[in-house]
Amino acid sequence: MRLSRYFLPVLKETPSEAQIVSHRYMLRAGMIKQASAGIYSWLPLGFKVLRKIEDIVHQEQARAGHIAMLMPTLQSADLWRESGRYDDYGAEMLRMSDRHGRDMLYGPTNEELITDIFRSHVGSYKDLPLTLYHVQWKFRDEIRPRFGVMRGREFLMKDGYNFDLTKEDALHAYNRHLVSYLRTYERMGLQAIPMRADSGPIGGDDTHEFLVLAETGESEVFYDSQITDLKFGDREIDFDSHEQCQAVLEEFTSRYARTDETHDETLFNQIPEERRRTARGIEVGQIFYFGTKYSEPMGATVQDSDGNKVPVHMGSHGIGVSRLLGAIIEASHDDKGIIWPEGVTPFHAGIVNLKQGDAEADAACEALYASLTALGLEPLYDDRNERAGGKFATMDLIGLPWRITVGPRGLKNGVVELTSRRTGESEELAPEQAVERIAAIYKKVLPGS
Amino acid sequence: MRLSRYFLPVLKETPSEAQIVSHRYMLRAGMIKQASAGIYSWLPLGFKVLRKIEDIVHQEQARAGHIAMLMPTLQSADLWRESGRYDDYGAEMLRMSDRHGRDMLYGPTNEELITDIFRSHVGSYKDLPLTLYHVQWKFRDEIRPRFGVMRGREFLMKDGYNFDLTKEDALHAYNRHLVSYLRTYERMGLQAIPMRADSGPIGGDDTHEFLVLAETGESEVFYDSQITDLKFGDREIDFDSHEQCQAVLEEFTSRYARTDETHDETLFNQIPEERRRTARGIEVGQIFYFGTKYSEPMGATVQDSDGNKVPVHMGSHGIGVSRLLGAIIEASHDDKGIIWPEGVTPFHAGIVNLKQGDAEADAACEALYASLTALGLEPLYDDRNERAGGKFATMDLIGLPWRITVGPRGLKNGVVELTSRRTGESEELAPEQAVERIAAIYKKVLPGS
Repeated sequence: MRLSRYFLPVLKETPSEAQIVSHRYMLRAGMIKQASAGIYSWLPLGFKVLRKIEDIVHQEQARAGHIAMLMPTLQSADLWRESGRYDDYGAEMLRMSDRHGRDMLYGPTNEELITDIFRSHVGSYKDLPLTLYHVQWKFRDEIRPRFGVMRGREFLMKDGYNFDLTKEDALHAYNRHLVSYLRTYERMGLQAIPMRADSGPIGGDDTHEFLVLAETGESEVFYDSQITDLKFGDREIDFDSHEQCQAVLEEFTSRYARTDETHDETLFNQIPEERRRTARGIEVGQIFYFGTKYSEPMGATVQDSDGNKVPVHMGSHGIGVSRLLGAIIEASHDDKGIIWPEGVTPFHAGIVNLKQGDAEADAACEALYASLTALGLEPLYDDRNERAGGKFATMDLIGLPWRITVGPRGLKNGVVELTSRRTGESEELAPEQAVERIAAIYKKVLPGS
Repeated sequence: MRLSRYFLPVLKETPSEAQIVSHRYMLRAGMIKQASAGIYSWLPLGFKVLRKIEDIVHQEQARAGHIAMLMPTLQSADLWRESGRYDDYGAEMLRMSDRHGRDMLYGPTNEELITDIFRSHVGSYKDLPLTLYHVQWKFRDEIRPRFGVMRGREFLMKDGYNFDLTKEDALHAYNRHLVSYLRTYERMGLQAIPMRADSGPIGGDDTHEFLVLAETGESEVFYDSQITDLKFGDREIDFDSHEQCQAVLEEFTSRYARTDETHDETLFNQIPEERRRTARGIEVGQIFYFGTKYSEPMGATVQDSDGNKVPVHMGSHGIGVSRLLGAIIEASHDDKGIIWPEGVTPFHAGIVNLKQGDAEADAACEALYASLTALGLEPLYDDRNERAGGKFATMDLIGLPWRITVGPRGLKNGVVELTSRRTGESEELAPEQAVERIAAIYKKVLPGS
């Protein structure tokens, strides 16, 4: 993309309404614009990152064998009356009536709707196990929406639902989701720690939240410092294997890690003192096993191998897709702006032309642009007639991990400058070497490689 | 995908509520399930096609130089009061109040919101031309939703908005959209004819609708038969060239083609009688030029090169993404089921194992599955323990364009059977040849090739 043809409305001043760094930078980098309280338009740069995060979620769900579908945003109130949650949900649920006076609501979650789909179409244990998920906009009418996309009212969430014949199978689905989520977050450059949590209005006994450590997190968290040394990495795993998934669960959850909701001071104090940590965390996902809580009242049963009708065992599993943009920025930024991890960066590299209009510099930039594009990478070329200082400030603010700077002086020596946004280190090298270097870096993070 | 692990709830019986063939087949093929009147869940097979159509729209928008973003589904009523449309829009607009009593609505279209974004961020003619678009769920509270996704209430639409300094530039944007839409629909296997239309509540003088001819279309259309001979094909076009885009517009709109809303009997009768056609059509898109209708009341101005503040010239341009699934099926089916065009098919080929459990047949199917997958294609392998007749009926119903049938008898002679869903013709050939044939077919339709 050429910046002269893009829509990147960066702000020089810090908007006064933004209290946390991710909100400030998302506004300043022209990623979002508030449409009304807690509701945002995703400007082109923000939308690109949102889409990358969504793509990673889809790819990792497919890897785990989960099936993508899409439920609508609006639901009939009747289903929620059946489960008993229509009255329970309170003022956070946005309710409305259609032109015929039928009660409807903007879905805050989808247990009822998916259970209805299941009971309408599945009747036999032979069709299990089954995990269906979607990535869809939800609405929760927060009384005080704030922190930008971190606590918005209209937000994008991945929610998945497993249907299993037995509790054992359902707990495998739970473990499989935990493994899949570890991979998912790591691909986004995040360390998200599974912590024992409280189930809230979803219900159920087994639940873990995934928390990203960040000073601005809304939860206080308590953990054994050994946990931050764990990496899932690129290990191969058979998602059908109960043993392999169980082993990962044990590895990642056997050490103490809890939010303030479930914190147990006595257990915490059993950790050697030098490993006890208190910090703040941002919740980016949660998994639940809740057994037959919805399948029993809603009649979601299957015939087992003996011909008996039994309610299925279920769980639900969520990733806060739009909130992740905020979480990633909270975890990865400096005082100049955002620092995108390679896995989610909106553009793979920036090209800064120090002397727009100089024939040689223009040609070198065009050649870099063409080479990167031919490799399947997306460069952002700042081809505006602006001063170098302004171009650098924009690139630093929007946080592309790699920048190639092209100027007449370097070109005389046959070199351009390759700069890492994270370390700030620069290196002079031939243009084709810069392209090779960037290609090699992304070969590790792009899907299918 | 292996069918034994997929969620494909095909129905044997025709649902009584479905009056048109696309609705019947989408229900029977397990693509959608009604959640409430005019609101659908997209089951896995339906979601896959929806995503493919959305991807084609994104790719062709990018090709035309339009910039993707995303506006929220819910909007504040205030903006619509500013444009004067809040009261005009009537009962089709779904209105609600949030917990603080603020008036909100589920966006039926986005002229107000995009104009607000534009006026907040753009101030100079140097930032023009600019076309922003998104693909987002809309809601229109149809009094009698029917025909499945063809006339639903919650529907997915691409809507784009151009901002230009002059009327001439804005008309170029109009032409550019027309060209881009011709390419978009052809990639989906559709012939969509641009017809002079009525602007309705959007406003403006220049507008064309794109109609797909189909017996079940809601509009009566009148056209010169020469128009159906026109093909955009894979011609190269410079979307920046006013002349090239204008030439395409003239080529595709100079012959008579109108809906009943704008039909002119006198003009129609000037066509030689043997070329006059009356038919029915399904609207799948519309483009508008409406000048300063929104920019003037909402203050969306830029400074021109003389320093004068002038309101920008705008247009809006829509593609009915979810409705397209219905339109494609109406245009492409037979009495056994859907016939997907290669550009949007949910899976590229079906593999039918005639004797599941036979070691040789199973191995041959697995090898085909692996080869197709390695080529970047997605096969659907019917690995269920079912009779051949049932497997064929399912494949015909869900309409994959190519089917490979594998059985012990053919394998003895070293062959499998490759069948075209469209022609019904079959050919025996070696498994690797079947794979090559399918790869060659898709090489022409897949992006980037």
